[in-house]
Amino acid sequence: MRLTNLLRTMVSAFLLLLSAGAFAQTGEDGYDLWLRYRPLEAGLQARYGRAATELVATGRSATVEAAAAELERGLSGLLGRPLPRTARIGKDGAILLGTPASTPAIAAMKLPLDRVGAEGFVIRSTRIGGRDVIVIAANQDIGLLYGAFRLLRLVQTGAAPEGLDIVDAPKAKLRLLNHWDNLDRTVERGYAGFSLWDWHKLPDYLDPRYTDYARANASIGINGTVLTNVNANAEVLTAPYLEKVKALAGVFRPYGIRVYLTARFSAPIEIGGLKTADPLDPAVRAWWRAKADEIYRTIPDFGGFLVKANSEGQPGPQDYKRNHADGANMLADAVKPHGGVVMWRAFVYAADNREDRAKQAYSEFKPLDGHFRDNVIVQVKNGAIDFQPREPFHPLFGAMPKTPLVMEFQITKEYLGFATHLAYLGTMWEEVLRADTGHGGTVARVVDGSLHHYPVSGLAGVANIGNDRNWTGSHFDQANWYAFGRLAWDPDASARTIAADWARMTFSNEDGFVRPTVDVMMASHQAVVDYMTPLGLHHLMATGHHYGPGPWVNDLGRPDWNPTYYHRADAQGIGFDRTRSGSDAVSQYAPSVARIFADPKRVPEDLLLWFHHLPWDHRMASGRSLWDELVLRYGRGVAEVRRMRATWESLRPFVDPRRHADVAAFLRIQEKEAIWWRDASVAYFRSINRLPLPPGAPEPAMSLDAYKALSFPHAPGNPS
Amino acid sequence: MRLTNLLRTMVSAFLLLLSAGAFAQTGEDGYDLWLRYRPLEAGLQARYGRAATELVATGRSATVEAAAAELERGLSGLLGRPLPRTARIGKDGAILLGTPASTPAIAAMKLPLDRVGAEGFVIRSTRIGGRDVIVIAANQDIGLLYGAFRLLRLVQTGAAPEGLDIVDAPKAKLRLLNHWDNLDRTVERGYAGFSLWDWHKLPDYLDPRYTDYARANASIGINGTVLTNVNANAEVLTAPYLEKVKALAGVFRPYGIRVYLTARFSAPIEIGGLKTADPLDPAVRAWWRAKADEIYRTIPDFGGFLVKANSEGQPGPQDYKRNHADGANMLADAVKPHGGVVMWRAFVYAADNREDRAKQAYSEFKPLDGHFRDNVIVQVKNGAIDFQPREPFHPLFGAMPKTPLVMEFQITKEYLGFATHLAYLGTMWEEVLRADTGHGGTVARVVDGSLHHYPVSGLAGVANIGNDRNWTGSHFDQANWYAFGRLAWDPDASARTIAADWARMTFSNEDGFVRPTVDVMMASHQAVVDYMTPLGLHHLMATGHHYGPGPWVNDLGRPDWNPTYYHRADAQGIGFDRTRSGSDAVSQYAPSVARIFADPKRVPEDLLLWFHHLPWDHRMASGRSLWDELVLRYGRGVAEVRRMRATWESLRPFVDPRRHADVAAFLRIQEKEAIWWRDASVAYFRSINRLPLPPGAPEPAMSLDAYKALSFPHAPGNPS
Repeated sequence: MRLTNLLRTMVSAFLLLLSAGAFAQTGEDGYDLWLRYRPLEAGLQARYGRAATELVATGRSATVEAAAAELERGLSGLLGRPLPRTARIGKDGAILLGTPASTPAIAAMKLPLDRVGAEGFVIRSTRIGGRDVIVIAANQDIGLLYGAFRLLRLVQTGAAPEGLDIVDAPKAKLRLLNHWDNLDRTVERGYAGFSLWDWHKLPDYLDPRYTDYARANASIGINGTVLTNVNANAEVLTAPYLEKVKALAGVFRPYGIRVYLTARFSAPIEIGGLKTADPLDPAVRAWWRAKADEIYRTIPDFGGFLVKANSEGQPGPQDYKRNHADGANMLADAVKPHGGVVMWRAFVYAADNREDRAKQAYSEFKPLDGHFRDNVIVQVKNGAIDFQPREPFHPLFGAMPKTPLVMEFQITKEYLGFATHLAYLGTMWEEVLRADTGHGGTVARVVDGSLHHYPVSGLAGVANIGNDRNWTGSHFDQANWYAFGRLAWDPDASARTIAADWARMTFSNEDGFVRPTVDVMMASHQAVVDYMTPLGLHHLMATGHHYGPGPWVNDLGRPDWNPTYYHRADAQGIGFDRTRSGSDAVSQYAPSVARIFADPKRVPEDLLLWFHHLPWDHRMASGRSLWDELVLRYGRGVAEVRRMRATWESLRPFVDPRRHADVAAFLRIQEKEAIWWRDASVAYFRSINRLPLPPGAPEPAMSLDAYKALSFPHAPGNPS
Repeated sequence: MRLTNLLRTMVSAFLLLLSAGAFAQTGEDGYDLWLRYRPLEAGLQARYGRAATELVATGRSATVEAAAAELERGLSGLLGRPLPRTARIGKDGAILLGTPASTPAIAAMKLPLDRVGAEGFVIRSTRIGGRDVIVIAANQDIGLLYGAFRLLRLVQTGAAPEGLDIVDAPKAKLRLLNHWDNLDRTVERGYAGFSLWDWHKLPDYLDPRYTDYARANASIGINGTVLTNVNANAEVLTAPYLEKVKALAGVFRPYGIRVYLTARFSAPIEIGGLKTADPLDPAVRAWWRAKADEIYRTIPDFGGFLVKANSEGQPGPQDYKRNHADGANMLADAVKPHGGVVMWRAFVYAADNREDRAKQAYSEFKPLDGHFRDNVIVQVKNGAIDFQPREPFHPLFGAMPKTPLVMEFQITKEYLGFATHLAYLGTMWEEVLRADTGHGGTVARVVDGSLHHYPVSGLAGVANIGNDRNWTGSHFDQANWYAFGRLAWDPDASARTIAADWARMTFSNEDGFVRPTVDVMMASHQAVVDYMTPLGLHHLMATGHHYGPGPWVNDLGRPDWNPTYYHRADAQGIGFDRTRSGSDAVSQYAPSVARIFADPKRVPEDLLLWFHHLPWDHRMASGRSLWDELVLRYGRGVAEVRRMRATWESLRPFVDPRRHADVAAFLRIQEKEAIWWRDASVAYFRSINRLPLPPGAPEPAMSLDAYKALSFPHAPGNPS
């Protein structure tokens, strides 16, 4: 072929692809998450081009195949040329993927694999047979998959490809998503459309999206998923549904992800035909054993059960005058022969309990420490109320040395602006994990199991995933899914580092983009706290759907469902006294911590009204009165959102038009709703204290009655 | 730049795009519908390359912009190179797009624009100023958009680009989708996920998918969409929702699509604070007038209301002892000043009416002919029961010369296998449209308005669209959306031609693909009829969700909700006698038609048991007994599905892997469910007549009791 002919052919092929590429612009809709694998800039491409020329993976499991396929997909995208798979190292720049068992060359190397356990990995730049090689080694195949994703992250974020020497393993054993997905595909507290699980078409149709879900989770180390809502439906335990669960488990297995289900405590009655669900009744115990046997026959690596019992109307052992340990242990005995676990939620507050709701989980569970089977894990929300914009860490952390505690974070933003508010939760979770329990270590040391030498450890995140094209309802909410996985892998990881990695992989590696974007993310959670619930206020949202402000609500069936129960504002002051003069919830904390929380001068201002009822003219550190400070904080939150909008506007050159427009539209909504929160809250509290607004604070846009009259009967995520 | 350097640059760019293209393989997930615009094969590309070199569009409306943008997008994709926009014709191969008003060159041509009305167009190959030009001309901008899509269809389907001379205009004025979408995003009888309308984020966030929805609809001539369920919620008529509707209307407007809403008849009570919704009450009339004024202030081109009244529990004028005309006319008076219409559904069957349900709509509406305002349209389902797999045409067609009738087809497959059964409905609709009413013309002549000189005419299709990525829940269900649009534009269009066009645009232009695929599509509806409701049987599905067979059901609250009401099988025979000896429903047809339907020897066998109750040993045209023939038909349906599966398997080389696998998986489900329908139905009817199966017919796989015990509490699309 003459050069000119070749050129002509190339030009036409180029133009053809250009047009195909132009058409594929709809691809930038967020579906690819942080696994976009778009071409690197030329300099990095050249550098990595030399370091990644071929792929050698000798293992044959589905997990090794997944790892190799991901490297091929990722590196060919990033480097702009195919990554050939070869049987042996043939040139400089080979990537060698293997375990000592599968790959003699790796067995022959002195790699510190004894430090990485079953799931960790080693990545090392070295020379084998005179060739420059990047080795990804692990003890088990799943470590290879995690190592492959780690190498891809390095390339994606522009790290230097030379001299790699990484030894890493997860600190927590269970790293789980909790889906609050119902069998009708509605998602409780879901703001990303509807459930991914298309139960009706399972097990016959396996949506390719299930595989992408598994890829995304594996890329951040998630190793289990609870498919169903904690407000559970027993039907998922029937044979036809177990076949569907089995099909999903088959998709997830190569990615190291086990499936778990929620167990409705009354299932023996509802689907078993028994008259009772009493955990000490032999027939009930036999039913659960048989059910567990059936499940494990169907899904041999089934993870276990997650249970919400005797909470918010769910059935439980207390219906039969048994305690939580009785209930949990019965289920634990059923799954124990199969290696399963029971995660028993500590989120309880009894209908007939007049104690401060913040105290009830501790009161019920602390006495049970030491009474649970060794395959029971108690799952504790980060705070004692319910995923509020900010809570002090839960007093159970550190108080249950004999019972493994799993942290439950809420990734979905039930109380943090649904999908449309940009609120990066990495900082909130970091704050909780780094909190000193006063029992000899931080919360992170509790949940990674090291403080009390728990036999099992873990973190669970209530998923924000739905069938919206971008998975999480908004592009920036992907960062929360991502950050949860990273923190579950390493509870000591830095929220800022995680944010930066995510921003680079998801949008752009350019510093001019990354720095301001990370700054926005790092400031975003505090902004939401400020415009929704500043200074330690909490539980002020509207009823049911929790969309928007409702600090005035005081007519619900139970005292502790009412916002007024939590803020206790009157003409004189505001706040919930949880010191000794009040509910004494502070005493559930270790003395060193309790002393700080109990002292209005030492407690962090962001938790002030969580623990203290104070007069409106209480003098704050700023010198301002509490009332003026409160109003100022509301305004500060709105101002921060305006700054976020301006910053995002300035980043337009770095972001594809579709996603830039999506985020910009949501920031407009966030500003509108931040103003709504501020104005409605200020209008309400002013009606209580009759005080003037501080100078410069804007008048609320509408009357208090107008805010009260707003109604949103179809707000999403509301269980009907 | 030296040639070798240029070459090197080209090669690297080529490889880069290649990898990006490889990554974008997820693009072939069906989202692009029939507007894929993938590169044509080289021969056609060259031929069209000469015929389409530049685009000249001088109009400036958003509609002209949409037409020009679509031509750029489509032709650049199909031809593999950009289509430059120029201000004037500069070379051979220009495409000139314009109206006489916007484009003097078009005004100067002698084009038959007087024949195409407001929405039609002319496409003509001609010479202007010595250049070869393709002209797309219309009287209004919307005609240009339709013309642009028509030209694209020609290119997509490989039609010759030379000597174009097309003069076309829609035969029906209203071409509407009816969305049975609820405000909580569930979709009644929806099998494609959940509602596209993300009401919570409207009006602030406009999902780009709304635009793609409008493009797809405009491409097939749809010019209106009813956004909400006929089982209506009055809230959509409140101011906050009207703002959301306005936002959608703004997206759709450039594409010639008007929005309509369903009007809940009791809205004056529910959101208006009135004590009555009596259509003759002055306060009620004033409320609707004010509401219509408010709607039109918000959305000046609002289309009008669709109403389901006094049907299946919906409120209506009969609640106040008024008739349908009283109700419809009240609403018609409210929208009349604004140019709106009221579509009043004839799908009624009263709870206290003991008449054959098939007769009730005719009985109620026929006497009202001539009593409706001129902006009332009565919307009539294709058959008199309810979208059964096959029904004779509705006797109202032809019987209402003074009242415009709109055809209501159901695109969503409530009774035709949900999303997973391949059932092309073009043939079913063609059969209805071509039926001779006996009143001087076919059903098509009634709904296009020509038979009775209706001032308005139209077809409505109950949408099968949801938020599934492929829009319709299955790739082949896209064909039904497409076919509905094409038949609404031209009720005389050929179902086979439409199927071929769709298959070419959606999958492949290769004859080796198109012929067998169209054959599968053309045979598919009859296959479903055979394995579900052969020989004129109807309404035999399970209760509520309508998923699967339930011919045994006889315990529902109303006689005419029970399958046994419809099949009337006993030891002696089967079928619904609608002759004079029975319900005499035949007499609602014109005498020439009634004579055929009433005669078991002349009625089409596929409608035999719709009109006749016959003994099991009735001799069929085949010579077989009715029972043997019935069993044979069930088996024939299953056999056809097996053939469809085999054909699809053979087409693998022509189809991208993702979509091929999707369709193959659904065909497996279809086969499984076809066998279920056959076996459950045969097991049931055999239990009634105690007859042996004909030779060769397989034994049902399970016992009748086992079929009866199946339960599907979460089957989709079921209104709760």
